[in-house]
Amino acid sequence: MLRFLTAGESHGQALTAIIEGFPAGVPIAQGFINNELRKRQGGYGRGKRMEIEQDQVEILSGVRNGQTLGSPITLQVKNKDWQNWQDIMGVEEGANIGELRVTKPRPGHADLAGTLKYGYTDIRNTLERASARETAVRVAVGAVAQAFLNVFKINILGHVIRIGDVEAQADYNRLTEELYETQLYCTDEKVLGKMIEAIDEAKIKGDSLGGIIEVAAFNVPLGLGSHVHWDRRLDGRLAQALMSIPAIKGVEIGLGFNSAKIPGSQVHDEIAYNSARSFYHLSNNSGGIEGGISNGETIILRAAMKPIPTLYQPLKSVDIFSKENYLASIERSDNCAVPAAAIVAVGMTAFEIARSFLEKFSGDNLREIKNSYDNYYNYLRQV
Amino acid sequence: MLRFLTAGESHGQALTAIIEGFPAGVPIAQGFINNELRKRQGGYGRGKRMEIEQDQVEILSGVRNGQTLGSPITLQVKNKDWQNWQDIMGVEEGANIGELRVTKPRPGHADLAGTLKYGYTDIRNTLERASARETAVRVAVGAVAQAFLNVFKINILGHVIRIGDVEAQADYNRLTEELYETQLYCTDEKVLGKMIEAIDEAKIKGDSLGGIIEVAAFNVPLGLGSHVHWDRRLDGRLAQALMSIPAIKGVEIGLGFNSAKIPGSQVHDEIAYNSARSFYHLSNNSGGIEGGISNGETIILRAAMKPIPTLYQPLKSVDIFSKENYLASIERSDNCAVPAAAIVAVGMTAFEIARSFLEKFSGDNLREIKNSYDNYYNYLRQV
Amino acid sequence: MLRFLTAGESHGQALTAIIEGFPAGVPIAQGFINNELRKRQGGYGRGKRMEIEQDQVEILSGVRNGQTLGSPITLQVKNKDWQNWQDIMGVEEGANIGELRVTKPRPGHADLAGTLKYGYTDIRNTLERASARETAVRVAVGAVAQAFLNVFKINILGHVIRIGDVEAQADYNRLTEELYETQLYCTDEKVLGKMIEAIDEAKIKGDSLGGIIEVAAFNVPLGLGSHVHWDRRLDGRLAQALMSIPAIKGVEIGLGFNSAKIPGSQVHDEIAYNSARSFYHLSNNSGGIEGGISNGETIILRAAMKPIPTLYQPLKSVDIFSKENYLASIERSDNCAVPAAAIVAVGMTAFEIARSFLEKFSGDNLREIKNSYDNYYNYLRQV
Amino acid sequence: MLRFLTAGESHGQALTAIIEGFPAGVPIAQGFINNELRKRQGGYGRGKRMEIEQDQVEILSGVRNGQTLGSPITLQVKNKDWQNWQDIMGVEEGANIGELRVTKPRPGHADLAGTLKYGYTDIRNTLERASARETAVRVAVGAVAQAFLNVFKINILGHVIRIGDVEAQADYNRLTEELYETQLYCTDEKVLGKMIEAIDEAKIKGDSLGGIIEVAAFNVPLGLGSHVHWDRRLDGRLAQALMSIPAIKGVEIGLGFNSAKIPGSQVHDEIAYNSARSFYHLSNNSGGIEGGISNGETIILRAAMKPIPTLYQPLKSVDIFSKENYLASIERSDNCAVPAAAIVAVGMTAFEIARSFLEKFSGDNLREIKNSYDNYYNYLRQV
Repeated sequence: MLRFLTAGESHGQALTAIIEGFPAGVPIAQGFINNELRKRQGGYGRGKRMEIEQDQVEILSGVRNGQTLGSPITLQVKNKDWQNWQDIMGVEEGANIGELRVTKPRPGHADLAGTLKYGYTDIRNTLERASARETAVRVAVGAVAQAFLNVFKINILGHVIRIGDVEAQADYNRLTEELYETQLYCTDEKVLGKMIEAIDEAKIKGDSLGGIIEVAAFNVPLGLGSHVHWDRRLDGRLAQALMSIPAIKGVEIGLGFNSAKIPGSQVHDEIAYNSARSFYHLSNNSGGIEGGISNGETIILRAAMKPIPTLYQPLKSVDIFSKENYLASIERSDNCAVPAAAIVAVGMTAFEIARSFLEKFSGDNLREIKNSYDNYYNYLRQV
Repeated sequence: MLRFLTAGESHGQALTAIIEGFPAGVPIAQGFINNELRKRQGGYGRGKRMEIEQDQVEILSGVRNGQTLGSPITLQVKNKDWQNWQDIMGVEEGANIGELRVTKPRPGHADLAGTLKYGYTDIRNTLERASARETAVRVAVGAVAQAFLNVFKINILGHVIRIGDVEAQADYNRLTEELYETQLYCTDEKVLGKMIEAIDEAKIKGDSLGGIIEVAAFNVPLGLGSHVHWDRRLDGRLAQALMSIPAIKGVEIGLGFNSAKIPGSQVHDEIAYNSARSFYHLSNNSGGIEGGISNGETIILRAAMKPIPTLYQPLKSVDIFSKENYLASIERSDNCAVPAAAIVAVGMTAFEIARSFLEKFSGDNLREIKNSYDNYYNYLRQV
Repeated sequence: MLRFLTAGESHGQALTAIIEGFPAGVPIAQGFINNELRKRQGGYGRGKRMEIEQDQVEILSGVRNGQTLGSPITLQVKNKDWQNWQDIMGVEEGANIGELRVTKPRPGHADLAGTLKYGYTDIRNTLERASARETAVRVAVGAVAQAFLNVFKINILGHVIRIGDVEAQADYNRLTEELYETQLYCTDEKVLGKMIEAIDEAKIKGDSLGGIIEVAAFNVPLGLGSHVHWDRRLDGRLAQALMSIPAIKGVEIGLGFNSAKIPGSQVHDEIAYNSARSFYHLSNNSGGIEGGISNGETIILRAAMKPIPTLYQPLKSVDIFSKENYLASIERSDNCAVPAAAIVAVGMTAFEIARSFLEKFSGDNLREIKNSYDNYYNYLRQV
Repeated sequence: MLRFLTAGESHGQALTAIIEGFPAGVPIAQGFINNELRKRQGGYGRGKRMEIEQDQVEILSGVRNGQTLGSPITLQVKNKDWQNWQDIMGVEEGANIGELRVTKPRPGHADLAGTLKYGYTDIRNTLERASARETAVRVAVGAVAQAFLNVFKINILGHVIRIGDVEAQADYNRLTEELYETQLYCTDEKVLGKMIEAIDEAKIKGDSLGGIIEVAAFNVPLGLGSHVHWDRRLDGRLAQALMSIPAIKGVEIGLGFNSAKIPGSQVHDEIAYNSARSFYHLSNNSGGIEGGISNGETIILRAAMKPIPTLYQPLKSVDIFSKENYLASIERSDNCAVPAAAIVAVGMTAFEIARSFLEKFSGDNLREIKNSYDNYYNYLRQV
């Protein structure tokens, strides 16, 4: 059973993840993971911290001579800013916190709920872990999953299909690695200008923008996930994976919310067959998942990201301890992180697809898994 | 840790669920569960099987003298139709299947993907378990969770806010148990006529309609779920729970997809305080969850249901074994099950909220849990 | 991932189990399961309840026409005595308990700890679930696992190697199904008389006897379990499985505690190879598991069962509510249940071996699993 | 739910663990953890690597200013020997392995089973993770659990009660922290000389010795674990935890295997009550656990460790690839690691007791947990 844990505060020493249950013999290179980390740090609308960090993963276990060992994989991403935060974030008693205690919860963050839940006296104890910085190491985990899936030619890519009120048309021909050299990871060149304008305009107003990202998983075999028990359905697992990304407020698959609006005769994907492709569908309104099971078509997921909690434009709040009202207004440099969210969503999608893949095509090493996979494909061709 | 398994085929003997990890001393009555089962079977647009079944739960363990024991709870809902299906669905070798093997997959169902995944030679082996009939026992599980939550005045209700292209305005004042005496579980009386008309019209055309349902969880305490690890976030868990319901293709929380379209200054909920209510928010765009944690406001979830796979209007498909093309067109009696989905969604939401509640306010019996809960509320009032 | 839940009180309506994650296409017959249930009820030293119950399983889901479907399997064993207990054990409020409340905890049972832990006011709420009757349905679960393992010629058998101070010599040639037609499931004919005498003698004195049982799992492939993470080690999983059986106080593998007493040169199993058998060991002191992994030799487990808490010979105790001292002395009919424990241990061992087997040789149906298994055996022969 | 993952190869860069589900507000000092690491490295019979490593933990997350945050805790123990192993154990492709491939499996190790299971071509890929070095970070995890339990005056200590054929009498008065300044962590001064002699004698012969260790957990509250479901029983969980330690071949609780040998009247612990202590037992043959639940008495666990696989005295083996017979005989410096195993066993016991403790007395921070605990103790006093 593939599983992982992540750890790390935003201004602590390092983010760490351990992946357990990963098979042996899978080629993994730190460079491949670093490229995903770079993509997560890119995108128009990001602020200065991205420049400070330039995340690099270190693999501390589970990989030897370029291949996985089957033992747990440790991924670590150091926080380069740590040296400036040692006093405040020190592990040992006697950290020099003093006046630096945070007591003013920012609307739209975990600040209030997290601090009251845990009974903290310093909101920093919430915000350090609730920060989206944690997604850096999730992207590293996802990259390891992608390296595995790539062996089976499963390719997962994310792109931006909306920034604020600017909507894009998806162009899947442009959904390739080159897209991540662009500013917004958006395949619709016609709206790029408007998107950048919208971000700039929001910035001038001290405001922020969210958007919608789409993840496409190509070449996923028919048969991942299962209808037999609710928590093994691939749709449910992917929904949790994406909704668990900070600031995500909605997830849909295929036609998604639109499938609620049109009659059944226009929704369901008709079935066809030819000997080259075996069974396939004449459309993909289901987004590649029916009955909780991948159906052989491209898996299409969309997630809605709310705007970064903006703090230029002052919002009302209350000091947790003094109960004094104040206006939350702190300068920050990001005002749109939608492209980054697309990369995080790719990582989480890759992990969940790898998990379901390994439930169907289990094995202790890549050779065993390939055998199971090939055996299944032979069956599919001959059924 | 609260957990449950469900089992049962649509035309087998019975649906069964076992709930493990439920505390002792919680009042549970079969009548309460049966009322939820009745609500699931109701709603305009349902067909004749609903009348055949009139589901009744039997509690076979874990409850004595009207109270839970802390031991696993067995819930069983017999399939009244079983006697007519014993030959085809018999457990022992020699079931009389013969010509009754199903080989034609219906578009929009798990039929194709499930049958190829499992390597079945009879599609019935897929459809019996993929059927939404399984949700009956999920509703029973959810009713047990609700009985627990009700002790803490947490109340979870679902309603219909869209049928096809007819949209309703939510009226939370009408969101009470009485709503489930109505035909469509919709609080907007002005659109009821249009909704029924739309269902009738679709039926005449041999078509079907989906819709959107909303679940509101009132009085959930601030602090359920956690930002500290992705799989403990309440938003992710609820997303999985709702997306795992058959035919659900999208899930959103609070403003959901709309929060991607408007600037941050209009999205984030400002924070206020008064001594009677402690901290609260001036709006609820977040739908009661921030940073993966309940924030004390009403939790608002919406889910999009695709139309029932319609089979009056013929759709193209291919026989799995002969590979012959055919037009899938089988008469069935439901053509809209959106109200029922609202009840299933309530059940799944109740389970997940109860699970997160018991992680924060653990204990072996209700008295211990109440103590933890009261202790926390005292802290919240004095913080 | 193979998992199961059990439910049911000793005098409730029924014991129920749901097994989830079991592959499709495995032949299962109720008769096979019933035979295991019969073996659990046998053995010299058992009392009258065994005759009342004569357990029979009903499979309520997950099996059709003699084969598993891949969907969850419901196993139910009705309590035939239920009709006499409906008043006391009734589910609905108003059960007629009155004077029948149990307030005197029996030494050696869960009575005291369970009742205080859960805050019950009737010890019956503990003893109904703590009763070893629950193991009937575990045996049924184990039988399903055995049916699967038998396909791969993995055969798991249990026998008695000690009753009180009478020790037997294991004779593996006699460890066959015929053994379960005998009185004590012991392969050493020379000590049978002494064992029966010891049980009779204890009974006359109002005393009880425990013993040691051994489980042998034949033909388990090399490679189940894993050294890479502590909770995937097969030895640890089997230890939990056996120690979780009521009255078991010790578990050992291979030489077990004796391996602590002799030097390493006499403990470690030397390795040999020939082309027919591939690698094998010249002895089996490790009991078939090295580094948490099955090593291809017979897996040998032993478990120590304490005597049934005897209640003829009075033991001191205290009424939970009145705090009055009393002498616990209630007549009961079993005074030795060691043979039954051997059957329960077989069931739990079968489940855990099946779980680890399915982690290595995954697949949705038996054909896929066989392919994985054959592929691995080909590799082992050619390595 | 408390959980942890460990990672790291014996000659890799570092051992890492992440603990998730740990409450906030618990005082943790690196020095406390380091002291446990030091105890694990001590004990007569250890070789030179212990001197090289002198393990030190670094806490990389989850602790700030001397207290836990409730977020995941990263523990890292660097391998000081790493610099000498970079060529062989390097992560990136191109590690300089060449002639250094290990192909000769050592009897008594995971070498053969692990290498064939994973399909490795270098036994090093097994032995690096199967090495008992991994237990260093388990001890660190256990130390964090102990720091938590200490708040509730739960104290867990381990000692050596047998080395080879030399048996000790446990003297619980000497079972204190001072014991870990001695050579063998054995409370029986009379046999110390014999034990050391036995180790020396074995060493001269090129042989090794195992032994038996005992763990005592003092002041564990009545009510941890549960009889209601097999996998929640405390005895089963502890058995898995101890059996999962490398080289452990047997686990027993209380009288353990001896309880199988004597009649019930001499086994079961009689129950008494006085107002100061509430309920207690007149003996502790059950080792503090009845019905899978802690019963308020000291928890007593014993584990049997087989001798370190000795390689001075040659044992027969076969090269995995060439199939040539050879005599396995490699010099190594440890020949008895029983005292170290006692410390690892303490760590694993502490983790499992903390896990069960947090299931009963849940809460997000120490204050909430204390409230639950105090509330329960008040109930126990008044029942």
